[in-house]
Amino acid sequence: MIGTARRRRDGEAKVRGTTRYVGDMPVYGLLHARPVLAADAHARLNGIDTSAALAVPGVVAVLTHADLPLAGGSGRAAEPLAREEIVWAGQPVALVIAESEAAAEDGAALVDVDAEPLEAVLDLEAAIADGAPLARLSEKAGEDESAASAHGGGEGEGAATSGNLAVEQHLTNGDAAAGLAAADHVVKGRFRTNWVHQAYLEPQSTLAWVEPDGTLVVHSSTQGAFMARQGLANTFGLPMEKVRVQAAPIGGAFGGKLMISEPLAAAAALKLRRPVRIVFSRREDFAAGNPAPGQLIELELGATADGALTAIRGRIMGDRGGLGDMGVEAISTMLSAGPYRWPAHDLTALGVSTNRVSPGAYRAPGAPPAAFAVETLMDELAQQLGRDPIDLRLQNVLTAGDKGIDGQEIVVFGARECLERVREHPLYAGRDQLPADEGVGVALGFWPGGLEPAGAICKLDSDGRLTIVTAAADMSGIENAFIAIAAEAFGLPEESVRVTTGDTASAPYGGVAGGSKVTYTYGRAVERAAEEAKQRLLDAAASELEIAPEDLEVADGEVRPLGAPARAISIADLAAKTYTFGGRHRPIEGYGSSAQISRAPGAAVHLSHVKVDRDTGEVRLLAHVIAQDVGKALNPALVEGQMHGGTAQGMGWALLEELSHSEDGQLQGGTFAEYALPSTDQVPPIETLLIEVPAPDGPFGAKGVGEPPVCGVPAAIANGIAAATGIRLDVLPMTPVRVWAELQNAPVV
Amino acid sequence: MIGTARRRRDGEAKVRGTTRYVGDMPVYGLLHARPVLAADAHARLNGIDTSAALAVPGVVAVLTHADLPLAGGSGRAAEPLAREEIVWAGQPVALVIAESEAAAEDGAALVDVDAEPLEAVLDLEAAIADGAPLARLSEKAGEDESAASAHGGGEGEGAATSGNLAVEQHLTNGDAAAGLAAADHVVKGRFRTNWVHQAYLEPQSTLAWVEPDGTLVVHSSTQGAFMARQGLANTFGLPMEKVRVQAAPIGGAFGGKLMISEPLAAAAALKLRRPVRIVFSRREDFAAGNPAPGQLIELELGATADGALTAIRGRIMGDRGGLGDMGVEAISTMLSAGPYRWPAHDLTALGVSTNRVSPGAYRAPGAPPAAFAVETLMDELAQQLGRDPIDLRLQNVLTAGDKGIDGQEIVVFGARECLERVREHPLYAGRDQLPADEGVGVALGFWPGGLEPAGAICKLDSDGRLTIVTAAADMSGIENAFIAIAAEAFGLPEESVRVTTGDTASAPYGGVAGGSKVTYTYGRAVERAAEEAKQRLLDAAASELEIAPEDLEVADGEVRPLGAPARAISIADLAAKTYTFGGRHRPIEGYGSSAQISRAPGAAVHLSHVKVDRDTGEVRLLAHVIAQDVGKALNPALVEGQMHGGTAQGMGWALLEELSHSEDGQLQGGTFAEYALPSTDQVPPIETLLIEVPAPDGPFGAKGVGEPPVCGVPAAIANGIAAATGIRLDVLPMTPVRVWAELQNAPVV
Repeated sequence: MIGTARRRRDGEAKVRGTTRYVGDMPVYGLLHARPVLAADAHARLNGIDTSAALAVPGVVAVLTHADLPLAGGSGRAAEPLAREEIVWAGQPVALVIAESEAAAEDGAALVDVDAEPLEAVLDLEAAIADGAPLARLSEKAGEDESAASAHGGGEGEGAATSGNLAVEQHLTNGDAAAGLAAADHVVKGRFRTNWVHQAYLEPQSTLAWVEPDGTLVVHSSTQGAFMARQGLANTFGLPMEKVRVQAAPIGGAFGGKLMISEPLAAAAALKLRRPVRIVFSRREDFAAGNPAPGQLIELELGATADGALTAIRGRIMGDRGGLGDMGVEAISTMLSAGPYRWPAHDLTALGVSTNRVSPGAYRAPGAPPAAFAVETLMDELAQQLGRDPIDLRLQNVLTAGDKGIDGQEIVVFGARECLERVREHPLYAGRDQLPADEGVGVALGFWPGGLEPAGAICKLDSDGRLTIVTAAADMSGIENAFIAIAAEAFGLPEESVRVTTGDTASAPYGGVAGGSKVTYTYGRAVERAAEEAKQRLLDAAASELEIAPEDLEVADGEVRPLGAPARAISIADLAAKTYTFGGRHRPIEGYGSSAQISRAPGAAVHLSHVKVDRDTGEVRLLAHVIAQDVGKALNPALVEGQMHGGTAQGMGWALLEELSHSEDGQLQGGTFAEYALPSTDQVPPIETLLIEVPAPDGPFGAKGVGEPPVCGVPAAIANGIAAATGIRLDVLPMTPVRVWAELQNAPVV
Repeated sequence: MIGTARRRRDGEAKVRGTTRYVGDMPVYGLLHARPVLAADAHARLNGIDTSAALAVPGVVAVLTHADLPLAGGSGRAAEPLAREEIVWAGQPVALVIAESEAAAEDGAALVDVDAEPLEAVLDLEAAIADGAPLARLSEKAGEDESAASAHGGGEGEGAATSGNLAVEQHLTNGDAAAGLAAADHVVKGRFRTNWVHQAYLEPQSTLAWVEPDGTLVVHSSTQGAFMARQGLANTFGLPMEKVRVQAAPIGGAFGGKLMISEPLAAAAALKLRRPVRIVFSRREDFAAGNPAPGQLIELELGATADGALTAIRGRIMGDRGGLGDMGVEAISTMLSAGPYRWPAHDLTALGVSTNRVSPGAYRAPGAPPAAFAVETLMDELAQQLGRDPIDLRLQNVLTAGDKGIDGQEIVVFGARECLERVREHPLYAGRDQLPADEGVGVALGFWPGGLEPAGAICKLDSDGRLTIVTAAADMSGIENAFIAIAAEAFGLPEESVRVTTGDTASAPYGGVAGGSKVTYTYGRAVERAAEEAKQRLLDAAASELEIAPEDLEVADGEVRPLGAPARAISIADLAAKTYTFGGRHRPIEGYGSSAQISRAPGAAVHLSHVKVDRDTGEVRLLAHVIAQDVGKALNPALVEGQMHGGTAQGMGWALLEELSHSEDGQLQGGTFAEYALPSTDQVPPIETLLIEVPAPDGPFGAKGVGEPPVCGVPAAIANGIAAATGIRLDVLPMTPVRVWAELQNAPVV
């Protein structure tokens, strides 16, 4: 069962269109919600005239912030509609609720927002300069008397230099200044990276209603049912048992489907006591979703002449947008050191409020920018040292027993094995024999892997088949992983195993599907649940056969006495004997849980073969190799799918994608027609090399595989460009105009 | 927590009308189904003309048997609409499906059933006489080549005397004939008991739809979600994972809500691929529900002069109605021996097919008739022997260590304690000092208690409150019992515990809510689940406090170090630390299950104080005392509620209720206006005496309490009438006309 490539269990339904997404759910008496988005990036909200909208036939209500039954909480969830201040162009300011989608849309067009423009804050550095205008004048939701300290000191230590500095944190060890001073070689750079739209196919979608007993029921395209329950309970002041969240099938999510549309639909349902659905239009999703934020990374690395790293110093800024409640700067800072041994480090994370959309966690949040910076500099360092770039990395890369930059000991880490594997690849070996303007870049990306407790149930049904119950949202075929794990642990063929996604009221707890942790955390819970259920199966068989459980084995759908297979009893028969009046066996069910405390970081090494057109600046990707440590590929087909997908997203991040704003903060573009996702002809063949360095605590050795593949792609491409042309780009995306300008030694656009 | 009277958790919602029953569920695109019921008790179905019905605006389809997507199974579920033969007046023969309830009703009135009447079989004894006409000429659903043997021999041994004899079983031990011959006293009787309507307030109701992936989803007022899933999968040939059943809130059920309306709604939904709801009208529920069947019991008891029972012999007949697939004769036969020691017994169970509605399991199926017979005879025997009737019972009653009539050893049984308690009651002590025409009757009823495996989950939520998840349908406040058990086992106040009824896809397995077994089976599973969750709580606290789990206790919402309460950590804090990113504790959750193999039969002794009006034959109930062994009353208020309810139902059974058919099989009456349920002025004050003889395997000693209270009521009233007047009634209900006739020594009507 483990290690065999199999089709996605949910594939056929998705291809046939029979998957019932939130937007497809038929609901009696459903109302449709359409948000009214702010036109200004920063403005004082003086009033909203809803009269024309309310006059549209079919419009039931037009809700503004004051109408919402909010009770508390903080951040975006606590302020689903702008209060007295608009802080980004695209911020929802009103919600039109109507009997039809068309009426809601007509109504939304007629809502008149009276807003008085304020100076917009858009540049990260200017935002934190002395005397900079504030991106937000009013208190944030959830702020109390300690608001000043939050504005000032943020979550970390240190003094703030501006009211726009939402967070400042320092990550230091040893004397980095001395380390750099003592270094034989120092490389440094200043890297600016792009806002990137999450670009899932299904937009943010939530359906909510209130049961007659007051229970708020939410079906949502969410990555975290329990997280949504907690957030909604906080936001609306509801007891936990009065919120029930069902994770619906997800039409794509990369970290962004967490409490964006839920508070809107829930607020309207609570207010109107009717079912309400909101499905963002594509334009709304671009303007009011939660993309990866722009970052500015300044980094300085030192090394001795023999290649030993001495110190790293830097400042990692992340845009927190208008609400300032979420940022990637902390994790990005940790990742900016790369997976290397540093005798000393001095890194500062700055989270900055601006008048942009609030950012979210997009596949390996903060990692591609961090790897872009540090891997570019490692490449440059190898160049300065005249060293093979892989050898230099191998010399310094973290391995088991080392301590990471967070001070935690590394238990298992396959970066070394990935580097070694790629070094042998013909593309790498032949990289110096390429035609002019072609080059091969190498880069190492890694992701620490999230951790969160999880529970699971495995229950044998009366037909002798096994059902797994968890609350995990399935974004990437996780159903298959669970099935493989349970099938192997219990002893049934995969065809006899199925998965149910339970809601928060009935399923065991489980964390957000994100952080590349579902297999690693839920998977272990599933394994244990299946093992416990198997023990019940053996107990039942032992009782029926009058043979001790330890003298039995499970095989081919039967429980067999060891050495006496003819006396076997089928699992289906045991099930039938169990689930019946007077059944003498306990249900053949098990519960399992995990609270992983040992991380199993994932690493991926990329080779990017690029060709640069010196006349146009266009970068063409000719070939790509990714070697990823996956621990153990439970289903290689799906693991390869993750590697392909992550790599392709990295290519978009590197060369094409940018959610850009004009100087006054207006989103430029906002549809897939204008937003440059990589198309199939822009993605070269991707060769996937699966490296298996088993995680001791992972199910069958598996590690998270979703995020590692995206991290190193922009860096590998940038290093490929450098190999092809000698120029180094420090801005993402590396568009033709930027590459061309750099080739001309002209100022970067 | 245990032993404290508390209000029903679901009470307020039910009183306020906010409980969402199946009939209240709003469903998009819902179709409404209305059955067309057969007019004849027995007829050949030549054809059904649906054209007029189909012409009614809003009628979508008129389904007949041939239209249904049936795949197999047997019994009523496999033949939801009559095939080629009508076997009772009221049998559904067609189903009209329409956009509105009104259109469905209009359509149903226009369906033209072409049926050729056949001779109806109604009398139990005539039915099994040689040469009797058959109640069914055609094969039953699910019958194959062995049909003849099924018609002939039934499920038991012995030769059938008629094609109407569906089942014949013998329960024998020792030489009963010799025992009776050797007896000093022999009493015998022939008892005829009534068909009794189940009289729940909410009629049979099911809602069904088919998901785009082909999953049949059923929300139903069912007592057994898993049983319904199994039945529907069998009936429609669906894989188990393609059937998902949610037990909805039940508006009353006493054993009857099991696969009556489910196959109808499901068949229509599968056929039409639209949501379909059927809610029986009251008249349909009377005509096509599943009432307690009429019985005919012949019984003969022997005893020595000193009161020791020697033998029992008898024949217990039960009506199986037109479909012949369900009967109470087997259990009734076992119960006809009463809970007494018999050196020899010879009892025959006969299940007889007739042209009546198919019967169901109504609260203690077969028990009130059995107790009516045996307890009347015990009373008579005491009279003959000149013995105190309680003393005579005490002399012979089963106690722990004895073997019951099924040969199983009795582990625990509180009948003795109930008898002893009642003997001391002033009403009993003063029974000889009553005015003329008043009397006090005593009778002992018992119920063996059902057994079926069950599982449960307890999970602490992030707000520090506990949720219990089972698939148990709540008919009688079982939610409170689960809450008390889990609260006690885990260590939280009841206010912090709640219950979720999961569906078959997500909840652990659990048996039918029936047989007085929910507390005894599920309750034990809940207890174990709570204990396991508590262990996780202690583990988490131990880790936080760095104290061994065994040195901790749970109290007042905290986990406290023994002897150092100041270092306590609150359960809510532990929950918050657990359910979070990077949480280091496993979810505070547990799974528990049970497969009880030891029965804890329930017993109840009744005193009925009656006054007989010799002029009219009316029996007035002046007072009633019930002493019931409940093992341990988890919530005395609810236990008393069960005792009140069961006793009141027994009074209706004894004096008022009868679902009667005319000589050609037409149901007489069919509404609550015509069906004589006891009204409040007919139910006297009921004094409840709770006897607690703990069940070793029950949760905190609890036993099933739902069915025992109904069993002995008709017998106690009959014995009261005998005490008041000297006459003994052998027909239920003991209506004024029957009592009057007996008083005149006239033939019984």
